[in-house]
Amino acid sequence: MDVTVVGSVALDTVETPLGKNEEGLGGAATFFSLAASNYVPVHLVAVVGEDFPAEHVELLKSKGVNLDGLETLPGNTFRWAGRYHDDMNMRDTLDTQLNVFEQFHPKLPEAAQKSRYLFLANIHPALQLEVLEQSKASFKGLDTMNLWIDSALDDLKKVLSNVDALIINDSEVMELTGERNLLKGARAIEAMGPKTVVIKKGEHGCLLVQGKNVFVTPAFVLPEVVDPTGAGDSFAGGFMGHIAQQDATDFNTLKQAVVHGTAVASFTCEKFGPDRVAEIDPNDIANRFRAFRDLVAF
Amino acid sequence: MDVTVVGSVALDTVETPLGKNEEGLGGAATFFSLAASNYVPVHLVAVVGEDFPAEHVELLKSKGVNLDGLETLPGNTFRWAGRYHDDMNMRDTLDTQLNVFEQFHPKLPEAAQKSRYLFLANIHPALQLEVLEQSKASFKGLDTMNLWIDSALDDLKKVLSNVDALIINDSEVMELTGERNLLKGARAIEAMGPKTVVIKKGEHGCLLVQGKNVFVTPAFVLPEVVDPTGAGDSFAGGFMGHIAQQDATDFNTLKQAVVHGTAVASFTCEKFGPDRVAEIDPNDIANRFRAFRDLVAF
Repeated sequence: MDVTVVGSVALDTVETPLGKNEEGLGGAATFFSLAASNYVPVHLVAVVGEDFPAEHVELLKSKGVNLDGLETLPGNTFRWAGRYHDDMNMRDTLDTQLNVFEQFHPKLPEAAQKSRYLFLANIHPALQLEVLEQSKASFKGLDTMNLWIDSALDDLKKVLSNVDALIINDSEVMELTGERNLLKGARAIEAMGPKTVVIKKGEHGCLLVQGKNVFVTPAFVLPEVVDPTGAGDSFAGGFMGHIAQQDATDFNTLKQAVVHGTAVASFTCEKFGPDRVAEIDPNDIANRFRAFRDLVAF
Repeated sequence: MDVTVVGSVALDTVETPLGKNEEGLGGAATFFSLAASNYVPVHLVAVVGEDFPAEHVELLKSKGVNLDGLETLPGNTFRWAGRYHDDMNMRDTLDTQLNVFEQFHPKLPEAAQKSRYLFLANIHPALQLEVLEQSKASFKGLDTMNLWIDSALDDLKKVLSNVDALIINDSEVMELTGERNLLKGARAIEAMGPKTVVIKKGEHGCLLVQGKNVFVTPAFVLPEVVDPTGAGDSFAGGFMGHIAQQDATDFNTLKQAVVHGTAVASFTCEKFGPDRVAEIDPNDIANRFRAFRDLVAF
């Protein structure tokens, strides 16, 4: 089964305690696509500017990502710059230049409309609503961020009432629901629409809640984190990719999907930007899945 | 096999977002003893003042805790007061009154000296050294805190070079080793002496490292945390209690011990002070162990 992702493709300038990556390939839809392409064909719907390097297009194509929905508009590509603290759970945004993203209205090619699996990566909820109107997907996953919880809550609530799964950070659960307890927060989100809630806790792993079913898992233990940028989007790519590959959304499949997301995200942290997630293949993921099972078995 | 614990018995005044507990039974050795008494006979070595309520003594006796090493000195019992933030991973110490603890020099009764398993709960490393001189234990576990890392590092390093396992918070790993990465931190601690390193991450679970063996597990997911005070000490009690009960320290036993610690600690958080951990029995722990296995299985 195919998966369609709609979100940002960006040029990121990232500083971590281990170095700096200037104007590297970034964006939520990029990381998602590179991760999910290990599982199923991916349709990427996004916008770039005329300055977007051809090598990045080639990289995505080489992973089999369908770029019919990647629009090029006059002007520059969306840029983001951030700096991670010594505690890499914390980062400051240094600069955001929306550029062509300001004019973006997602247009799904016919094949992307027909995808049975859709992921709405983090963009303005009003745009996510435009995507939902075009999509015929039977399973829709969603990401969002604190900015939209603060500034576009009405639109976000409309989106929430029309998706099947929300993938969200632990800190955002509190902002969206007012609940500090993640289990209570998940219940509050379920009441907004999504029957499945996936709460990402960064280096501390993930909580999956679907009705009475609850699953919790740590993150993979890495000896060194070089750059966590895109780990959450890679997680979503592994999660949705596995679900689409299995074409199933029962709780057992969702649990396995969380572990696939965990495995893929762990690769992403090993190098700057998408360098590591772009070079792995399904065999690497299978090996890490087994290593993770060994790590948590008792 | 018996286990001996040396540490604080206190009267705690604790505020959490869910209420306040005035001068309740507290102290690391108390929580440890209540937890470990579900597994094996426990020898508690500590000091209290003449004001220590008889009901607390009765509670510990009712759980079969041997109090031959509980000294009563003229003066008041050690008191601690703290307030938890809305984010219960954070707390402020409001007051500390050492009282009789200032004169404390641990004296192990003969039976406590002969315990094959010893746990040095968080007290000044100089006192921990006094205990090590008296103990004939073949497996020694250790806790410490940031205060001693800052103010008594030389003594602490002597203790570290003479124990088998360190049970430590994630934030303290950084303070002790300078490493933010927990795996690297564990390696640095191993180089100081302990062959087994257990890193507690609070609500995020636990990392166990012993040479090339690594195990990571989340915490039990609770719908409500009433008071996390003593959770770490209860964890240590479940961990050491299981090891002593099995009389084994191979890595599989240590992994199971971590899950026992996790299970017992989860009970502690459900009520104020030791109210919940004092009322559970081995059957409750076995049930939670199974519930935990279900929660993390994939």
